[in-house]
Amino acid sequence: MKTISENACFGGKQGVYSHASEVCGGEMTFGLFMPAEAENDPVPVLWFLSGLTCTHENAMVKAGAQNWAAEQGIALIFPDTSPRGTGVANDEAYDLGQGAGFYVDATEAPWSPHFKMWSYLADELPTLIEDQFEVDMERQSITGHSMGGHGALTLAMNLEGRFRSVSAFAPICNPTASDWGRKQLGAYLGNDESTWTKHDAALLMKDKGFDGPVLIDTGTDDQFLDLLKLETLAEAATKRRQQMNFRMQPGYDHSYFFISTFMEDHVTFHAEALYA
Amino acid sequence: MKTISENACFGGKQGVYSHASEVCGGEMTFGLFMPAEAENDPVPVLWFLSGLTCTHENAMVKAGAQNWAAEQGIALIFPDTSPRGTGVANDEAYDLGQGAGFYVDATEAPWSPHFKMWSYLADELPTLIEDQFEVDMERQSITGHSMGGHGALTLAMNLEGRFRSVSAFAPICNPTASDWGRKQLGAYLGNDESTWTKHDAALLMKDKGFDGPVLIDTGTDDQFLDLLKLETLAEAATKRRQQMNFRMQPGYDHSYFFISTFMEDHVTFHAEALYA
Repeated sequence: MKTISENACFGGKQGVYSHASEVCGGEMTFGLFMPAEAENDPVPVLWFLSGLTCTHENAMVKAGAQNWAAEQGIALIFPDTSPRGTGVANDEAYDLGQGAGFYVDATEAPWSPHFKMWSYLADELPTLIEDQFEVDMERQSITGHSMGGHGALTLAMNLEGRFRSVSAFAPICNPTASDWGRKQLGAYLGNDESTWTKHDAALLMKDKGFDGPVLIDTGTDDQFLDLLKLETLAEAATKRRQQMNFRMQPGYDHSYFFISTFMEDHVTFHAEALYA
Repeated sequence: MKTISENACFGGKQGVYSHASEVCGGEMTFGLFMPAEAENDPVPVLWFLSGLTCTHENAMVKAGAQNWAAEQGIALIFPDTSPRGTGVANDEAYDLGQGAGFYVDATEAPWSPHFKMWSYLADELPTLIEDQFEVDMERQSITGHSMGGHGALTLAMNLEGRFRSVSAFAPICNPTASDWGRKQLGAYLGNDESTWTKHDAALLMKDKGFDGPVLIDTGTDDQFLDLLKLETLAEAATKRRQQMNFRMQPGYDHSYFFISTFMEDHVTFHAEALYA
């Protein structure tokens, strides 16, 4: 593991690190905020998965999460959204290829050699971070934005018992039925749509739900609301009586101004579960 | 004035606007955060002047100031750091020309036709903002980072009675004696160094001081400390018994991670003066 940068931040440390990823077949970069408390004891962790076009950096510099994580004594992990670099397949569209991994393990050419974001986040990166930092991986929660909200919800519901709470900002909820999803799931996973269902938060919510609290925030002026299909998640969660706080925030859009506004609520929400 | 973007943010609105600047001879862009309180009454304003290479955008997306400004009911103005565009002089160096206006009115070629950031911030932009938004320009305070800390301190001390309080993050304090300053003041103002002194915070502090509270934060690990010459400001302020809180923050560097960490303190500090 290489240290790219470390900056003092809210009494703790904001680091950026890279490492040779076996599952992604190349160098991967991630951000990690460690609160001051980690000097004494392992701290619980909150994952933040980012949206289309983002790297590890966007949320790290724009979401304002470190303040609240420092207050709560929680580590923040900011993974990248895809493998990158020369030799890694890409597409000219902003919503496919590098910056758009969609948190799946690709099985189709040309994506399958590197695009293994599911395994990377479910197995490889948590193992590395547990090994290298003072974190308590018995206490993990997860959140994300847009495509990253999709990732957070699908990881949380599939990896039963892994995460104590899950939240999302304007998540992609029903990718098997949206232009933000069908194109990517088809490209990465192929035409057999039965392989897609474990990557659809609304279908997972209908099928199994989440064993813990769920918080969802979306702006009423979100310019991508039709693509996110929030209503499918709301319906499925309501029908199964899922413990959930589902909020439509008046006037907010899809931007980091929206995310930063409600970040304190999300970190506090996760802290309650992590310290329960 | 043109609206570039407006996003809901912490109950208020983060806008980006551009306008034809008479003094800078071209289009200028600025960010403006208006808290919810502005819907009822004019609100006090806090200026944030940015550092080298920055635009109106850096602090707006990375400093986390809107949260605290919303709490205090204060507007935030994020001006650009120089004129820009084709037809505007530039230099290959990061610290001269576009992105490096140094908050002076250039008198020398090739800079003098456009580089009038002093007049822009002292006169033109406040007049425009007072005219277009629900702000109370009787209640203004000012802060900034690095080159912008220099701008904040020099504007505050020169424009007596204009600002109720001034603060700075890692400000350039003594540009007439630093490589961050001599090059630029020489290029913009010429070789007669008597014209430089009104743009040197340490000299101004020695000569006249500031009629109000001053807050300065700098990291002990700031990689540019030798260029900032904080000690000259500390000495001058101490000698004249200036009301001041001058803090060296252990382990922090020059980055926005440092700025965001102490932004709450700065906004709270200014709020006390603005609502006194």
